[in-house]
Amino acid sequence: MRVRDQHFRTIWLSEKDQQVVQIIDQRHLPHRFVVEDLTTVDEVATAILDMHVRGAGLIGAAAGYGMYIAALEASDSTSIAEFMDSLEEAGEQLKATRPTAINLAWAVDRQVRRLKDLGGSIHALVELAREVAGEIADEDAEFCRQIGLHGLPLIREISQRKKGQPVNILTHCNAGWLAFVDYGSATAPIYAAFDDGIPVHVWVDETRPRNQGAGLTAWELSQHGVPHTLVVDNAGGHLMQHGLVDMVITGTDRTTYTGDVANKIGTYLKALAAKDNKCPFYVALPSSTFDWEIEDGVKGIPIEQRDPDEVRYVYGVLSDGEFDGVLISPEESPVANYAFDVTPRRLITGLITERGVCEASKEGVLALYPEKVARLIVSR
Amino acid sequence: MRVRDQHFRTIWLSEKDQQVVQIIDQRHLPHRFVVEDLTTVDEVATAILDMHVRGAGLIGAAAGYGMYIAALEASDSTSIAEFMDSLEEAGEQLKATRPTAINLAWAVDRQVRRLKDLGGSIHALVELAREVAGEIADEDAEFCRQIGLHGLPLIREISQRKKGQPVNILTHCNAGWLAFVDYGSATAPIYAAFDDGIPVHVWVDETRPRNQGAGLTAWELSQHGVPHTLVVDNAGGHLMQHGLVDMVITGTDRTTYTGDVANKIGTYLKALAAKDNKCPFYVALPSSTFDWEIEDGVKGIPIEQRDPDEVRYVYGVLSDGEFDGVLISPEESPVANYAFDVTPRRLITGLITERGVCEASKEGVLALYPEKVARLIVSR
Repeated sequence: MRVRDQHFRTIWLSEKDQQVVQIIDQRHLPHRFVVEDLTTVDEVATAILDMHVRGAGLIGAAAGYGMYIAALEASDSTSIAEFMDSLEEAGEQLKATRPTAINLAWAVDRQVRRLKDLGGSIHALVELAREVAGEIADEDAEFCRQIGLHGLPLIREISQRKKGQPVNILTHCNAGWLAFVDYGSATAPIYAAFDDGIPVHVWVDETRPRNQGAGLTAWELSQHGVPHTLVVDNAGGHLMQHGLVDMVITGTDRTTYTGDVANKIGTYLKALAAKDNKCPFYVALPSSTFDWEIEDGVKGIPIEQRDPDEVRYVYGVLSDGEFDGVLISPEESPVANYAFDVTPRRLITGLITERGVCEASKEGVLALYPEKVARLIVSR
Repeated sequence: MRVRDQHFRTIWLSEKDQQVVQIIDQRHLPHRFVVEDLTTVDEVATAILDMHVRGAGLIGAAAGYGMYIAALEASDSTSIAEFMDSLEEAGEQLKATRPTAINLAWAVDRQVRRLKDLGGSIHALVELAREVAGEIADEDAEFCRQIGLHGLPLIREISQRKKGQPVNILTHCNAGWLAFVDYGSATAPIYAAFDDGIPVHVWVDETRPRNQGAGLTAWELSQHGVPHTLVVDNAGGHLMQHGLVDMVITGTDRTTYTGDVANKIGTYLKALAAKDNKCPFYVALPSSTFDWEIEDGVKGIPIEQRDPDEVRYVYGVLSDGEFDGVLISPEESPVANYAFDVTPRRLITGLITERGVCEASKEGVLALYPEKVARLIVSR
């Protein structure tokens, strides 16, 4: 999407030197726009571990490019076996950075499998690793673009009903292009509508404790020129009660094949408010986010607890431009920091996927992904 | 309540010099405990305006003491008329500091009315102003103590059902003793239960944007020794979904006589989650908080919008101990900052008042306050 009127992805190969991976170092957003060069596997691992890059889709793409860097580093190997050993070792190193990120392991394994299948010269393997990294990134972007196209009619319909008055869309956390390679999941329909000339306005939830809404979603919407307003996470209920929200679209970290949605903590509260005010509540996701095993999301999806200091300290920019954190609570007060919550399917109007929009139910999901039916029957 | 094992109110006359009003300067909490001396009306006005003191009950008490200071300042008047003129002028100055605070105007008017009734010597008038200021503070504390006594059985019942396992109570914002003279409203039943030996544990909502939960409620519970855990505002739904909350108690800024509750933004979201999870949701209030005019709270109660910078900047303590604010969002992103929301009565289990617990309905409220029935009929 656009940054200062130029098109950017979140990760790409340097135009000057195809052996250099470039990323937007998101730790500095929204205050500074920093492009970082990654030239070693160690640097890629650090970028994932320390969250220079984050978001399911982008982590997968970073792992894909990381494996290409690993192939470059191993290109002076004296045999294919030695080359592949180095590559698998690099894959383990990358996987260890964020062990729960499904897309990370998936991208590493895809690279290894493709290279194993090819054989041939080391030079050809390095070339293939570059191609596969590009494929992974392109696929992520394409899936998000499709989500945008499928979500667009939902927004257009509201716009027509409102006779061209802006469609007010509330979103929580950052399921924007910064979390993927391009377009984003929750934001894809919004960008598609905006680029199509439909007047939209986005309510951006701050998203405590890490403030991804205030820091990332507000920034990317602002850069692309999409009208938006930042609000605290507490405000959504009031906005919906007063007819100021036409629809909610969020992303998801994991959605069961039965339609229960795990997403950033606080999503469930917004879904309750949407239900109470008859406001449509959509969740946008590429199919890689479906969990095909768990039936009851509330009972089955484990909820990670993160470092309490994420709640205690709030980071931002001081008046002198320095980036720092301030302590907001008594040092002695205990803190609990649940990262996600689960929104039961009964509160969700629909799921927007790269294949289309479906009901948040087993029937709805399996109608879009019929190839999964047999697999589910087998696993019972 | 207790601060470092000593009993404190939020406002009092200095023991050494009864012409000095002392307050806890709450701007420094939870990081520093600062007692401030107020000896002029200007200082009292500044303390209210710049929120050294805040909270309905405490603002009323501060205004009461402010009028006593005004009486001291006017004690060299050459006539009673001149004295009363000075006093009324001071009253206007105090009222202008926070024009929407009902208790402020009420306390000022009460002082003026009582002094007018007395007549007599200027010396006697000054003495009476001191007495009335004390009465206002004592009454506030006593009402809160009564709220605690009426709420206590609700907690005890849950404790008995849980066979002595800690009763988990969630609260939003600061309706603690720091917002009143002592005990607080939402916290009064909690302190009463704790002091009675009932095991309790409080989930403290951070309460963005001003973080009164993280800064004030966590601090006062900690000082009094009440077990508690700070969570972000987003967490309550998840906690209730997993049976980790036995009841919710909040305060309120204004409650209609029909039972609709205006309170800090985000309260409505917690009430929805409580309803969805069959968790009792109580609102604690002294009767001064009832609005006897408005019938439909959602439609009728005006919701103030505050300075967007309250959302953009988060204040706290840097690692070097300095208190400062950090900017968390893009400078160019618009911000909306709604201060309150309204929770419809259908989501509220009961109101805890100084006269007892009642249903959040016109019938429930009027049964506790029968003297208001005639007034309502007259005003129709």
